[in-house]
Amino acid sequence: MKILIINGVNLNMLGSREPNVYGKTDYAALAAELVKFGAEVGATIDIKQSNIEGELVNFIHSAVGTYDGIIINPGAFTHYSYALLDALKAVDVPAIEVHISNVHAREEFRHKSVTAAACVGQICGFGTESYKLAIRYFVEE
Amino acid sequence: MKILIINGVNLNMLGSREPNVYGKTDYAALAAELVKFGAEVGATIDIKQSNIEGELVNFIHSAVGTYDGIIINPGAFTHYSYALLDALKAVDVPAIEVHISNVHAREEFRHKSVTAAACVGQICGFGTESYKLAIRYFVEE
Amino acid sequence: MKILIINGVNLNMLGSREPNVYGKTDYAALAAELVKFGAEVGATIDIKQSNIEGELVNFIHSAVGTYDGIIINPGAFTHYSYALLDALKAVDVPAIEVHISNVHAREEFRHKSVTAAACVGQICGFGTESYKLAIRYFVEE
Amino acid sequence: MKILIINGVNLNMLGSREPNVYGKTDYAALAAELVKFGAEVGATIDIKQSNIEGELVNFIHSAVGTYDGIIINPGAFTHYSYALLDALKAVDVPAIEVHISNVHAREEFRHKSVTAAACVGQICGFGTESYKLAIRYFVEE
Amino acid sequence: MKILIINGVNLNMLGSREPNVYGKTDYAALAAELVKFGAEVGATIDIKQSNIEGELVNFIHSAVGTYDGIIINPGAFTHYSYALLDALKAVDVPAIEVHISNVHAREEFRHKSVTAAACVGQICGFGTESYKLAIRYFVEE
Amino acid sequence: MKILIINGVNLNMLGSREPNVYGKTDYAALAAELVKFGAEVGATIDIKQSNIEGELVNFIHSAVGTYDGIIINPGAFTHYSYALLDALKAVDVPAIEVHISNVHAREEFRHKSVTAAACVGQICGFGTESYKLAIRYFVEE
Amino acid sequence: MKILIINGVNLNMLGSREPNVYGKTDYAALAAELVKFGAEVGATIDIKQSNIEGELVNFIHSAVGTYDGIIINPGAFTHYSYALLDALKAVDVPAIEVHISNVHAREEFRHKSVTAAACVGQICGFGTESYKLAIRYFVEE
Amino acid sequence: MKILIINGVNLNMLGSREPNVYGKTDYAALAAELVKFGAEVGATIDIKQSNIEGELVNFIHSAVGTYDGIIINPGAFTHYSYALLDALKAVDVPAIEVHISNVHAREEFRHKSVTAAACVGQICGFGTESYKLAIRYFVEE
Amino acid sequence: MKILIINGVNLNMLGSREPNVYGKTDYAALAAELVKFGAEVGATIDIKQSNIEGELVNFIHSAVGTYDGIIINPGAFTHYSYALLDALKAVDVPAIEVHISNVHAREEFRHKSVTAAACVGQICGFGTESYKLAIRYFVEE
Amino acid sequence: MKILIINGVNLNMLGSREPNVYGKTDYAALAAELVKFGAEVGATIDIKQSNIEGELVNFIHSAVGTYDGIIINPGAFTHYSYALLDALKAVDVPAIEVHISNVHAREEFRHKSVTAAACVGQICGFGTESYKLAIRYFVEE
Amino acid sequence: MKILIINGVNLNMLGSREPNVYGKTDYAALAAELVKFGAEVGATIDIKQSNIEGELVNFIHSAVGTYDGIIINPGAFTHYSYALLDALKAVDVPAIEVHISNVHAREEFRHKSVTAAACVGQICGFGTESYKLAIRYFVEE
Amino acid sequence: MKILIINGVNLNMLGSREPNVYGKTDYAALAAELVKFGAEVGATIDIKQSNIEGELVNFIHSAVGTYDGIIINPGAFTHYSYALLDALKAVDVPAIEVHISNVHAREEFRHKSVTAAACVGQICGFGTESYKLAIRYFVEE
Repeated sequence: MKILIINGVNLNMLGSREPNVYGKTDYAALAAELVKFGAEVGATIDIKQSNIEGELVNFIHSAVGTYDGIIINPGAFTHYSYALLDALKAVDVPAIEVHISNVHAREEFRHKSVTAAACVGQICGFGTESYKLAIRYFVEE
Repeated sequence: MKILIINGVNLNMLGSREPNVYGKTDYAALAAELVKFGAEVGATIDIKQSNIEGELVNFIHSAVGTYDGIIINPGAFTHYSYALLDALKAVDVPAIEVHISNVHAREEFRHKSVTAAACVGQICGFGTESYKLAIRYFVEE
Repeated sequence: MKILIINGVNLNMLGSREPNVYGKTDYAALAAELVKFGAEVGATIDIKQSNIEGELVNFIHSAVGTYDGIIINPGAFTHYSYALLDALKAVDVPAIEVHISNVHAREEFRHKSVTAAACVGQICGFGTESYKLAIRYFVEE
Repeated sequence: MKILIINGVNLNMLGSREPNVYGKTDYAALAAELVKFGAEVGATIDIKQSNIEGELVNFIHSAVGTYDGIIINPGAFTHYSYALLDALKAVDVPAIEVHISNVHAREEFRHKSVTAAACVGQICGFGTESYKLAIRYFVEE
Repeated sequence: MKILIINGVNLNMLGSREPNVYGKTDYAALAAELVKFGAEVGATIDIKQSNIEGELVNFIHSAVGTYDGIIINPGAFTHYSYALLDALKAVDVPAIEVHISNVHAREEFRHKSVTAAACVGQICGFGTESYKLAIRYFVEE
Repeated sequence: MKILIINGVNLNMLGSREPNVYGKTDYAALAAELVKFGAEVGATIDIKQSNIEGELVNFIHSAVGTYDGIIINPGAFTHYSYALLDALKAVDVPAIEVHISNVHAREEFRHKSVTAAACVGQICGFGTESYKLAIRYFVEE
Repeated sequence: MKILIINGVNLNMLGSREPNVYGKTDYAALAAELVKFGAEVGATIDIKQSNIEGELVNFIHSAVGTYDGIIINPGAFTHYSYALLDALKAVDVPAIEVHISNVHAREEFRHKSVTAAACVGQICGFGTESYKLAIRYFVEE
Repeated sequence: MKILIINGVNLNMLGSREPNVYGKTDYAALAAELVKFGAEVGATIDIKQSNIEGELVNFIHSAVGTYDGIIINPGAFTHYSYALLDALKAVDVPAIEVHISNVHAREEFRHKSVTAAACVGQICGFGTESYKLAIRYFVEE
Repeated sequence: MKILIINGVNLNMLGSREPNVYGKTDYAALAAELVKFGAEVGATIDIKQSNIEGELVNFIHSAVGTYDGIIINPGAFTHYSYALLDALKAVDVPAIEVHISNVHAREEFRHKSVTAAACVGQICGFGTESYKLAIRYFVEE
Repeated sequence: MKILIINGVNLNMLGSREPNVYGKTDYAALAAELVKFGAEVGATIDIKQSNIEGELVNFIHSAVGTYDGIIINPGAFTHYSYALLDALKAVDVPAIEVHISNVHAREEFRHKSVTAAACVGQICGFGTESYKLAIRYFVEE
Repeated sequence: MKILIINGVNLNMLGSREPNVYGKTDYAALAAELVKFGAEVGATIDIKQSNIEGELVNFIHSAVGTYDGIIINPGAFTHYSYALLDALKAVDVPAIEVHISNVHAREEFRHKSVTAAACVGQICGFGTESYKLAIRYFVEE
Repeated sequence: MKILIINGVNLNMLGSREPNVYGKTDYAALAAELVKFGAEVGATIDIKQSNIEGELVNFIHSAVGTYDGIIINPGAFTHYSYALLDALKAVDVPAIEVHISNVHAREEFRHKSVTAAACVGQICGFGTESYKLAIRYFVEE
């Protein structure tokens, strides 16, 4: 099983960015931890990150034929990027949306996801565990 | 680790209720499966179900001092029960909101959760796997 | 033909409750009249009432396999109970929503029914005749 | 008892118009059926149809002094014709609004009736039976 | 000075229509009174009425080259007829919108005029005097 | 007949204030013209102006027992002063709301009057003639 | 004078529930305190609590003929229970709505009460004193 | 190929109506030009115009069995006529909505088309060329 | 204990102003009654009234260092005066908002208080008793 | 005549992306077809595509001085990219907005174009013919 | 260069008012500091303050012919005073709106300025420096 | 003191882009002018520009540890880029939002800034002086 993890805008700042919200793990550590976890449960994990909405669209397109699943954390794009919604609908690779923080307990604008409608489901609020739960779902499914 | 799973309104109809949305597993089978899964991963699982909002409130209150975590699927109450929101805030037991279907891909009124703001996080869209992912989180946390 | 009439919140107060809106017939008289009317037109009528939303859900579930039709007057639940909407969708018994008063000529919040979308149709404004028209529809259909 | 049935916009297309929504009975057959049904239950039925909002207003005005009741299916005018609302309020003939389809289960804009507030009540969702239930109400009232 | 008075939907029912709102003067009397008043103050008054929105559009178009001013009471069309708005903008004859009742003191939907934006001004609330004040304005301007 | 004209905020700037909207007549000239016009048609006119909402409230209160009618141009207070609405309802002197410009053809926020609901009617768009039409109504009524 | 105090959802958790918002007095102590206070000022106080909306409806219905007044704290039901609104309108016993916290200074959804419209008045923000002020009103009225 | 062009409200005023928006070509010239253009590209063009919404509905109904396509410019009806929407859905003749002006660059209310949802597509902003592009589409399709 | 009662706009009209809403007690009598009541329960009461929003702001500012509590009835300013909200937040004197009528049972715009968020609590609907309950709270607190 | 066609986000996926909505022609074929069609009707066509909003802005800027017209299909950016709106307004090259699908007949969010206001007009719903109609307009204009 | 600084409601409370938001400088000190700063950069500064909206209107009117620029901090009036908007438009003196706090980072209602549309620009969030930046602009312009 | 100026979408078009709104200074001239001005007041100025939202995010991230302040003009991204909001919150470098035009006096959508909430303050409407005022603030702070 091959999984592509796509991290969106500002996720490269993990660790230094509002640590009370996003935790103290930095981005490189998170990436390493997810690859290791994947290996433990039987998944090959590739991880890409960009702050550019259109590059995230490209990452999604590129998954066709190579990956069995996408795990995407679009960051703030979650709340307004119909472009990502359309990209996820344009490919036949199942996707899971994850969030580190519980978006339902934050500002009003974060309560609405425009991208989740094109995913299998959404996992939010569990810190970096959100990614692992998604990996598990793909592996155990 | 002791976990209380609280299932809300109409979940007793699983299996016969809109199977294209909720799957064909019936409620008793789901309950048995979750208890078994809990045992495998090291959690004692108790499961309660009610179609009455106030009884769900009572279940939440009753968790204090007995359970290490609550997994709640409020059913349609998710979208309007400020009573459940307040109940979850009134107890010091961490809770996870789960949904069988991907609520973001259904009717507009299902896109908003009023109860998730009082939870650690939310998992939706993975069928009955949503519950198992939540159990795992409590166990591995 | 067996029909289950489900009366929701505050309908037990008929007769003494705002008689200029709901009429002077009391609840017991209404029930008797509907059973009698059913007998005349060839339908066995059972009637249940509760002020508890979840019990109304239970009544709906219990209709499966026993009744040919449901006539439901959810009272004020009409305007916010997505739980009843889901319950009506969860069973394969056809339902008709009835109201004693003309909800369209009253307060703004009564203009919207969230439950009628799961029914065959809606009849409102004809006093207790609303029920009889619904019975007739099931019988003559 | 004399009843005027007023059919609004596009109802002349019954039978060929979206038959999955409106059924296969054509307009002439419906009219004949309603006149016959009226005769059976003791009502003289006159039926008028127009696609022009203002002619429907004229039909309503013309009912004064001649008819004991109006049954009106305004078609799509239901949702925006304040002119019809005012016309119904301008005459002292009781009116019933009917719809063939269950407007509550269709597009959002069909959930709101601006004309029903000036009627005794509303009956929707029962196909052409909606008309007959209305006739019965007038006859049996 | 030649003035065209255009009366819209339901105004033909004046006198019998909700007399507590619109007064007891009937339509013919109003028309006669306005013609007489016009003669007194030096204006030739022609009056047209229709319940059909498109005929009101035609009346407006026909004013070009013949009348010095239009006085229009669109009735309920005031609140939704962008067609009348466009018609008034399409001609170079100044228009005044009048209402018999004080629309600001009635239902919410009557507080907004979509047609007045294409008029010189609006006069409402003075019963049939509203028309006379408009005539005076044209004459004395 | 004694009439109190109350001019609200910014009306003292007439003549120099946005003359393309409000005309070139200055405030003193307007006042003089209205007193003169009142005398011609048989009305004693007193005129007060203030830029302070509460003083306008006081002017309205002071009209009780002294004046037969109030003509009020609240200026921008028209659109948000529930205090003026309540003041007009608190006295038993009939009031007419006037505006120099056609508020319906300007910015969105000017389309709504919160004060007109407590008046006999509203006249807008006729420049300073708006006041004269209101005077005439009181005199001829 | 006999007064029925009805406490709604989550109020049984007083003392342990968000003490910074609701104070540290526990529910039993509050009940005892109110009965004692009632006795001092000349009122017999009965207190009922439920987390089930429909049971609160039943409590309200049961007050007819037995109590001179109802004091109701619906908890979170305040903001969406049209069922309670209708119940309060269905009985001829005067009611006062009370809240421990100042609902106007909390989340947006708590600013709106759908139930207060059927009460004599509302008292909020005074901690458990809110109940005593309501008792006093009934006694001294 | 036979095409029916239906022009709605105020289009008969082309040429004299707001020429900066709609251009200087008058209606007769437009009609002639379109017939001529149709002939050149191999289509027989019939053109009907009415200011009455219901007559436009009739024109649409009449297209069944006679025309291969409808080109409709509903004028201001575009923005509120659910009756035209239903009419277009009621017939099995493909339709194209056209507008002379770019409705997206004008008043807010013109940004929304309620009728285009029942068409193949919409062409707007190209002056009278909008019609020709639509004709071409039908011919070349 | 020294309490400042601040009465806002139109409250000077008590007694003659809409007596069915506000009662028949006139303002001077109310003031006298409250001073007398204060004396009975051990509070020195000063009362100020103004129809000018900014003077109410000044009254609030002036309370610092002199009064132990403010009781404010802002009248219609309750619903839009963010200036009063800021003034109440700017001083360290606790305030209680009172209303004579039950604002929740009147027009929609009266359901929202923008000022109560800066108060300890709100009391409404008890006629002039609303003030006395507030005095009691300050005295007994 | 030189025309620049700018294709926005996800258009590179044509052919494999939701073919029931967007058709089966792949992107390269579309591009070739449009260049060929341009040659036939006398236009030199250059085509650029990017999934990055800002690169589309750059393409628009680069058109100045080189192209006679822009044909832009912004994809999902149509509905929220004020950046593209400003870019189109920033250049003096006329633009036409095109869509393959009929955006008016799809999800609510697709009914609004924020970019079309800066274009000559919009063409939608004709599949890949939408582009050809736009090319024709530029050529024949 | 002569500049009039107009401070609105509650600004006289600076220093003691919510110092975490508005800082600890008191109002007199601010005024002195601004006059001194003006002198340094070559501007004569006059400063007026009032809590009464209408007096602020008067201050604005009084600037005509005397001042080269207005710097206005309307306080909470910023968010609802269309009267100030009209006053600023009524004079030909350029104005700058300033705020001590960053209104965009506070409550929702403070995000909208109704007065800034009549100003050259707005400066907010820099504490008392906001005023100095505005002075500089006038001086250096 | 080192300051990073970040210019967003379409700002590279300054000078040729809507000069009546944005002025005639071209982008290179603006950049040169700001560097020169910085030198005069003691600040080293670096300037970056991109039309790509994600590159602006990168610029913001890159400021950490290098710059003492950020001056950002996001262009149209101001109104919808929650990604930029999060980026500004993710770094500990103070930022000032500037706009050349007075956004409050333009289209409705420009009245709301989603990015300013993460800045010290906002300066708008002063043409290119807006940048200089921001530089001064950083230098003099």
